[in-house]
Amino acid sequence: MKDKLENIKRVMSNYVDINEDEWYNFSSKFIVKEFKKREVIQNYGDICKYLYFVEKGILRVFFIDDEGNEKTFHFAFKDTFTADYESFLKQITSNYIIQAIEDVTLIQIPLDALHFAYKNLRYGERLGRLLAEEYIFVFTKKTKAIYTKTPLQRYQSFKKMFPDVFQRVPQHYIASYLNISSVHLSRLIHQTNQNSES
Amino acid sequence: MKDKLENIKRVMSNYVDINEDEWYNFSSKFIVKEFKKREVIQNYGDICKYLYFVEKGILRVFFIDDEGNEKTFHFAFKDTFTADYESFLKQITSNYIIQAIEDVTLIQIPLDALHFAYKNLRYGERLGRLLAEEYIFVFTKKTKAIYTKTPLQRYQSFKKMFPDVFQRVPQHYIASYLNISSVHLSRLIHQTNQNSES
Repeated sequence: MKDKLENIKRVMSNYVDINEDEWYNFSSKFIVKEFKKREVIQNYGDICKYLYFVEKGILRVFFIDDEGNEKTFHFAFKDTFTADYESFLKQITSNYIIQAIEDVTLIQIPLDALHFAYKNLRYGERLGRLLAEEYIFVFTKKTKAIYTKTPLQRYQSFKKMFPDVFQRVPQHYIASYLNISSVHLSRLIHQTNQNSES
Repeated sequence: MKDKLENIKRVMSNYVDINEDEWYNFSSKFIVKEFKKREVIQNYGDICKYLYFVEKGILRVFFIDDEGNEKTFHFAFKDTFTADYESFLKQITSNYIIQAIEDVTLIQIPLDALHFAYKNLRYGERLGRLLAEEYIFVFTKKTKAIYTKTPLQRYQSFKKMFPDVFQRVPQHYIASYLNISSVHLSRLIHQTNQNSES
């Protein structure tokens, strides 16, 4: 258990100073859980019960649109948090589905653990603020890219950020995330490979 | 000046308890400013210098997409906050344009005022957390609607939330906000009017 919390401790300590006592009390409320590849962690219509920290593996967050198509909204990689933050904070049902893309190890933080932190950690409220702000940054980056970048730019910046993602994530999920068709993505990959070879 | 701060005081006090001394010191850093209808408050490429509170009027927040089309992302109504929160917090350039749809009165909160609040108000960090969370709620609501609701559902819930918006906001902005064409919106309006008459 202790080893599996080293990464989340490091990441949270980058946000605010947390002393050993605080960490002991706070992290004792975390739940470490493993999921197999393809397993659904949170389904459509569930309440998002945890703020998830990815200790190992990759998560996919997606919607089903009104025509029944899966729309990949986000990939959560190692050492990052994910949740449907509104569903989590308000304890209302979620439209997101969260699924394991590989075998994953998650650190699950229940809402009462976060409330405990707000109240009992010296910088608990600040930690909550910074987590919320980080969520905004991830969210707006994605939305702005969809609105203001070309498909090629979106593809290139995604590849730059996550160089090994094409080996680990099925291509049609990436196409959906980039808001383009699979055919379009294949063309972009082919095109940029040719350019880098010439 | 004092009268114009009554609404923002009430809204902030709904988030956290703020005493008179705290309010005096915090609000003395606010800037009350009026803009004429159609005036651009923040342009593409600017840094978002303020968290804006709409005291009077309506703001439109929009992007220019890669084909040069305006995409309305948000309307900020009376008694709500808006900003490009990432640009504001990180002081980086913004892709949003914020424009007055009517004559507006804004309460502009500079970043140093918010930092002052984090540090000096008893519940300043909590206020910051709750403002960030509220931003998430607005943002995800919009995004989820685009992904998971039909155009008719989006139109109906928008009309229900803002009954007088069609008298105050040009129809093509609303169409853009709902992510449908102007022709499609006209058809939905016509269709639902017929249904309510029959």
